[in-house]
Amino acid sequence: MGVNTLSYYEYQLQLKELLEYGVRRAPEKEIIYRDQVKHTYEDLYERVQRYANALEDIGVERGDTVAVLDWDSHRYLENYFAVPSMGCTLHMVNVRYSEKNLIYTMKHAEDDYVLVFDEFLPMMEEYADELDSVKEYILLSDDEPPETELTSLEYEDLLSSAFPNYAFPDLDEDTRATLFYTTGTTGKPKGVTFTHRKLVLHTLGILTMNTYFKPERRISTDDVYMPLTPMFHVHAWGIPFLATLIGMKQVYPGKYEGEMLMKLIREENVTLTHMVPTILRRIVDGISKQNILKRFLIRLLKPFSDLRVIIGGSRLPKGLAKEASEKLGIDVWGGYGLSETCPVLTISQQKEKMWDWSKDDTIEYDVKTGLPLPFVDLEIVNQEGNKLEHNGEEKGEIVVRSPWLTEEYYKNPEKSEELWRDDWLHTRDVAVIDEEGYVQIIDRLGDLIKSGGEWIGSTDLENIISTHEAVKEVGVIGVPDEKWGERPMAFIVPQEGAEVTEEDIKEYMKEFVEKGEIAKYAIPDEVKFLDELPQTSVGKIDKKVLESEYT
Amino acid sequence: MGVNTLSYYEYQLQLKELLEYGVRRAPEKEIIYRDQVKHTYEDLYERVQRYANALEDIGVERGDTVAVLDWDSHRYLENYFAVPSMGCTLHMVNVRYSEKNLIYTMKHAEDDYVLVFDEFLPMMEEYADELDSVKEYILLSDDEPPETELTSLEYEDLLSSAFPNYAFPDLDEDTRATLFYTTGTTGKPKGVTFTHRKLVLHTLGILTMNTYFKPERRISTDDVYMPLTPMFHVHAWGIPFLATLIGMKQVYPGKYEGEMLMKLIREENVTLTHMVPTILRRIVDGISKQNILKRFLIRLLKPFSDLRVIIGGSRLPKGLAKEASEKLGIDVWGGYGLSETCPVLTISQQKEKMWDWSKDDTIEYDVKTGLPLPFVDLEIVNQEGNKLEHNGEEKGEIVVRSPWLTEEYYKNPEKSEELWRDDWLHTRDVAVIDEEGYVQIIDRLGDLIKSGGEWIGSTDLENIISTHEAVKEVGVIGVPDEKWGERPMAFIVPQEGAEVTEEDIKEYMKEFVEKGEIAKYAIPDEVKFLDELPQTSVGKIDKKVLESEYT
Repeated sequence: MGVNTLSYYEYQLQLKELLEYGVRRAPEKEIIYRDQVKHTYEDLYERVQRYANALEDIGVERGDTVAVLDWDSHRYLENYFAVPSMGCTLHMVNVRYSEKNLIYTMKHAEDDYVLVFDEFLPMMEEYADELDSVKEYILLSDDEPPETELTSLEYEDLLSSAFPNYAFPDLDEDTRATLFYTTGTTGKPKGVTFTHRKLVLHTLGILTMNTYFKPERRISTDDVYMPLTPMFHVHAWGIPFLATLIGMKQVYPGKYEGEMLMKLIREENVTLTHMVPTILRRIVDGISKQNILKRFLIRLLKPFSDLRVIIGGSRLPKGLAKEASEKLGIDVWGGYGLSETCPVLTISQQKEKMWDWSKDDTIEYDVKTGLPLPFVDLEIVNQEGNKLEHNGEEKGEIVVRSPWLTEEYYKNPEKSEELWRDDWLHTRDVAVIDEEGYVQIIDRLGDLIKSGGEWIGSTDLENIISTHEAVKEVGVIGVPDEKWGERPMAFIVPQEGAEVTEEDIKEYMKEFVEKGEIAKYAIPDEVKFLDELPQTSVGKIDKKVLESEYT
Repeated sequence: MGVNTLSYYEYQLQLKELLEYGVRRAPEKEIIYRDQVKHTYEDLYERVQRYANALEDIGVERGDTVAVLDWDSHRYLENYFAVPSMGCTLHMVNVRYSEKNLIYTMKHAEDDYVLVFDEFLPMMEEYADELDSVKEYILLSDDEPPETELTSLEYEDLLSSAFPNYAFPDLDEDTRATLFYTTGTTGKPKGVTFTHRKLVLHTLGILTMNTYFKPERRISTDDVYMPLTPMFHVHAWGIPFLATLIGMKQVYPGKYEGEMLMKLIREENVTLTHMVPTILRRIVDGISKQNILKRFLIRLLKPFSDLRVIIGGSRLPKGLAKEASEKLGIDVWGGYGLSETCPVLTISQQKEKMWDWSKDDTIEYDVKTGLPLPFVDLEIVNQEGNKLEHNGEEKGEIVVRSPWLTEEYYKNPEKSEELWRDDWLHTRDVAVIDEEGYVQIIDRLGDLIKSGGEWIGSTDLENIISTHEAVKEVGVIGVPDEKWGERPMAFIVPQEGAEVTEEDIKEYMKEFVEKGEIAKYAIPDEVKFLDELPQTSVGKIDKKVLESEYT
């Protein structure tokens, strides 16, 4: 007998393994959707199998693209696992896009099947005849599904009539699993895809870094998880995959509504979530608007003191981190990544030697961009592509290599070549790295303010202004200036009832000039006050709108 | 421009990433060797680079095999990373083998370069002319290296004269990294190899399961690690790779000597180790031999109460687990795997619902074979290869699939085909799996005792006998019997000064018959008392010797 008959099995990294392990280890743990649905992991697994059978019954084949238009739900989680594990691509449609962009992405993805939550049914009805590739629509609904001529298929109906066992195929780990779109500063949405391998390794990378967290921050099976970045956006940072693998109780809030979020956090004892700064801002404000007795009780009882929040999408302003901690007892720190990077590249972390430092000292590190994950090779480079020193001084574009980066923009070779150059993924974020390895983003490439030949980082200014007690939110942009080329301009939303003037802010910033944290010329010439700041579809401050409408 | 020019970088899982991450995150953490050497991770990294340059200088090329004959040391750790990261294979020679077997493995491996600790120098000098493949020897020594005609190369000399920077190549993750030999019940040692990918994923698999551990057992960067299974044996279970990745302080004890081990555990505050049961037995005994004052102090101060011990290689006897816990305050639990499986397949674990159970209740789970790691598909099958139920009743051979299993026995297609059949790796271990997913090994296939047509598991009997207060160690084998085919026979080493008779043991076992834990016919016909049990080269009870010399 020769070695050729050897039946060695080349094990592939697949998403189904994450689900099946979670189900085996924590069959009784719960998946919760608003105050409407409570499933166990065993239920989840049965529903995933029923759903796969249902899809197969209506004609879904390996390689097809299945699109979902829904808010954060147990149904979405079921799609996270069922669709890729069948060998199909899950297209997570950004339902906050303008209709034009949304339909553009569905056409570009050539979606074969579409799951549509009833809120978005009228839009789908309107555009259905443009969406040539779509073979079937499936209706999603929290209550009685509405009548429609679009389809007679309804998700819960399909599941209840489908066979409860499904043997998911063994796939090559390089099989495409997910697709979603991201908008840059210009141009049309760009498609980003991830394979099974990338999604699995991203999960394992985060769990490995977890062993470096200080003890009270470490993630484990006894956490209760609720995402507060949408599931259509970079698969909620990939954390639902992680939560399922390690058997966490999971809570999905649907569309984000303040009262429901608070209720779920309290009643389900949520211990772990992640969000963009503007959502944390809203939570802190929501509490501040409570009557005095409630606010007193919150200060006394700290009902959120078990809650850990990881902030991403934009820099965590120090002022906001302080408020969340002092007013609500929430433990908050930052992370960084892009849609193109799955997303997590770095997490803000206190090193072991800092674990017993005071909050005032450690907060400086909690608001940093952070330290790279294992298997993330992260460098800063100058315009010629040369690596720069990690000395806290040299500023360069962040470039990365890692097992979980998107290979290309979907069907967009031109943009793909801008993304991948010299074997490194180019993030367009400009940062310094200090001797300790901490990354700190200064700005987006192209968004840096160049004043009199010197670079000013808008996020640096935002961070400083955010610590002023009268400031609720702040955005800084560069505006053209005849003499200096560009000058910084700040937009501020004041705290409720606070009195603050342009002069107050400038005086306050002078303190930081004296401390040597910023240069004198970094103080904005103009400070404007607004009732709110414009936001992008994923909750970041929309600087394009600030530029075009408020200057 | 077409997509063909895309410079997307396909990131490969490589051991160098584990080292480089540990060094970046924990540059000041220490690597300790006995009471002789204290390096930082930064030193480690520099030494690894110097060593790689030194190897290259003497002619080592990609694809070469570099063999090491040493006890557990900082040098071994340096070899773990340097040799595979150069694209070479690290052959870890079992220095406890008989000379005949040892030389056989070196010939079979076709070692190109050999590092030899001075203790083994005379043997190498004797056999050098038989080892045709060897191009150079490098001498390892703790003190002044002895004179020898074998070589003029000495490890520390080479390092100090080599260049301190080395750029490790980017390797395909399927490049072979390690090779070592394992002896089964019969035949010659068989070579087992692992690739970079397998070693990295094994590390990540353990760290993922770690999030399911109860809080006080979780592994993290602030642990202090010392292996007590030899580094030549399945790379000390792969834990030095894990320890380095997550930046733990590491302690290497050289040759195992009771006094030195105790000193290191105490003075370096070791918190995490792993060993076979016989080593734990020796530690517990070593303490029991202390004078009464010392024993009193140990009971009072529990100097080992920070120590967690994972037991593998053989089943953790419940009696030993109790003794270690009660006498020394050591937290001990089990794990399971084979040389062929990298090795870890399962770890004994208390599920979340058990975390607040009493020690008496949880110890039942601590001594089980355990729960499979993520990415370990583990089944029990009957002789026809059909999967059996997980009901705690059906007994079958454990078969596995996982990303970290050896592909084949090195240059041994015949044995490889016995190992891999029907796309599953066959372990030859017979087990039950209960409804909760706990695996419990009953015996080795072929070692099961078949008495009157019924199977008796020798490890079941050992576990029960081990709980008798007068029993220090126990081994059970099957001996031929005219009437019943086979009958169990027990060999017991009594506790120091304990009086115990064959009849006492049989009476004691009857209690377990009454409780329904074993059948009446499982009580051995004969119980023999020995001063010590024979051991294999890796510290397991050598049942072949019991059979051949004591029956």
